[in-house]
Amino acid sequence: MFEQLGLIGCGLMGGSFALALKKAGLVKRVVGYSKSPSTTDRARQLGVIDVEAPSALLAVAGADIVLVAVPVAATEATLKAIKHLVTPQMLIMDVGSTKADVVQAARRALRDQVGSFVPAHPITGREVAGVEHADAELYYGRQVILTPTERTLTAQLLQAQEVWQAIGCRVSSMSPESHDSAFAAVSHLPHLLAFAMMNALTGQPEGDDYLSLAGPGFRDFTRIAAGEPKMWRDIMLANREELLAQSKLFQQALAQLEQAISSGNAQALEDMLTLASETRAHWRMGAQRTSKQP
Amino acid sequence: MFEQLGLIGCGLMGGSFALALKKAGLVKRVVGYSKSPSTTDRARQLGVIDVEAPSALLAVAGADIVLVAVPVAATEATLKAIKHLVTPQMLIMDVGSTKADVVQAARRALRDQVGSFVPAHPITGREVAGVEHADAELYYGRQVILTPTERTLTAQLLQAQEVWQAIGCRVSSMSPESHDSAFAAVSHLPHLLAFAMMNALTGQPEGDDYLSLAGPGFRDFTRIAAGEPKMWRDIMLANREELLAQSKLFQQALAQLEQAISSGNAQALEDMLTLASETRAHWRMGAQRTSKQP
Repeated sequence: MFEQLGLIGCGLMGGSFALALKKAGLVKRVVGYSKSPSTTDRARQLGVIDVEAPSALLAVAGADIVLVAVPVAATEATLKAIKHLVTPQMLIMDVGSTKADVVQAARRALRDQVGSFVPAHPITGREVAGVEHADAELYYGRQVILTPTERTLTAQLLQAQEVWQAIGCRVSSMSPESHDSAFAAVSHLPHLLAFAMMNALTGQPEGDDYLSLAGPGFRDFTRIAAGEPKMWRDIMLANREELLAQSKLFQQALAQLEQAISSGNAQALEDMLTLASETRAHWRMGAQRTSKQP
Repeated sequence: MFEQLGLIGCGLMGGSFALALKKAGLVKRVVGYSKSPSTTDRARQLGVIDVEAPSALLAVAGADIVLVAVPVAATEATLKAIKHLVTPQMLIMDVGSTKADVVQAARRALRDQVGSFVPAHPITGREVAGVEHADAELYYGRQVILTPTERTLTAQLLQAQEVWQAIGCRVSSMSPESHDSAFAAVSHLPHLLAFAMMNALTGQPEGDDYLSLAGPGFRDFTRIAAGEPKMWRDIMLANREELLAQSKLFQQALAQLEQAISSGNAQALEDMLTLASETRAHWRMGAQRTSKQP
């Protein structure tokens, strides 16, 4: 049980975390700050936060748990702004989709206080932003990846695991670098491809006509292309090397399929489609990885 | 109101059509045939069809409406098999995802009876196949594209429009060639990319680990990669020129995004992501195309 959550960034992710903690009875009081005063005001009206703070620093005053839920590119400035009130007992987390850059930013900003910071990436999201969409159930049943460093304090790491578990998440840990490699493959690349798909369509004179004919397959395939452009710009730039490496592997797989199609090699094409189809049909979101028998 | 539906192919698409017609009270009797006798038997047990026919030809005997719901590659052989019992009053349709090849197959197979054939493509599907998944609601609320030719009889075309509308579809017509161009862009290409995405992952040593971390964005983006490999093999080969042309446009759009990422051009990247995001956010499945003011 926490006395006070200091929430910096009262959008979808931050607001949902506050609501989830409240619903689970894990926090007595939420003090919130957003860059835009109207967002902070709206968060209080909606009962997402209890008290509006006039600055990020003052949102942290008296808090025993702090969530930094700002765009990844703003993490360093935010942590710098709150550093003077960070205590060795405080648990500070973020919710960013990239982790190596966040860890570097935290090291620079927090220096000897960096042990209080537990980098966190909850695997969830919506194609809508803003505190109006905050939802106590957003994190329920989802995975959360923690990427502690050698400086992270054990007490904070355990607290972080407990709090995410208490709101219904499955928690795992890995290094920031492993995290960024994995999410380049399963998140950042699919987003890049979905954005490219939309732009390929709108770049054609018949694009509007084509779009009017698209069905449920297209709807689901491109859902993530409605993601927030600034957020995805930052993610793609922050994780550019891993993302471009994954895009190269994807283009090789695509070229193999194209080769079979253009040469009319039905058997090779069927084999490749079967491999993809079976892999996807057997995949279950959040399932534990099948251990490979020796 | 039809007396008898001759259903050739009692899988998901054919079975769902039979159930929808029954539910709407549009048919008195369904006579069904599938290549596999156990499928035909199962369709009768499930009440999808009323009578099992021992051949495609006999499923057509006495029918006033015929649905050919077989893999696209089997369309020509199926139409040849039933030709002798096709009458000028009969309405024959298919449900294939490509249309230029189907029209050519129908011309060759049906010859002077081709006027009875109305090529149809209902924009729906599931990542599960088989009569067990047949669903009277599969077509409800979906679009159906008819691709009549200059030989198609007006009476049959009107009947086709009416029957799809009666089971809840919105019907539009276009040429087989326009159809195939459009669906290369909004259906066949997304499938190709989703299959390639899965194969790019499984081609990596860490692929299983990465998959265990994938979340809801990945789930939706790759849903169509679980599609039936033989069906998609046939579609991709049948529509290969349009598909490869669309893939080229996609790769150009991807290269532009990659260029902005690798050069760190944040503004160019944001502009491209914004274009994609806004297009996708404003798109509504099945919405009429906004007419362009002159």
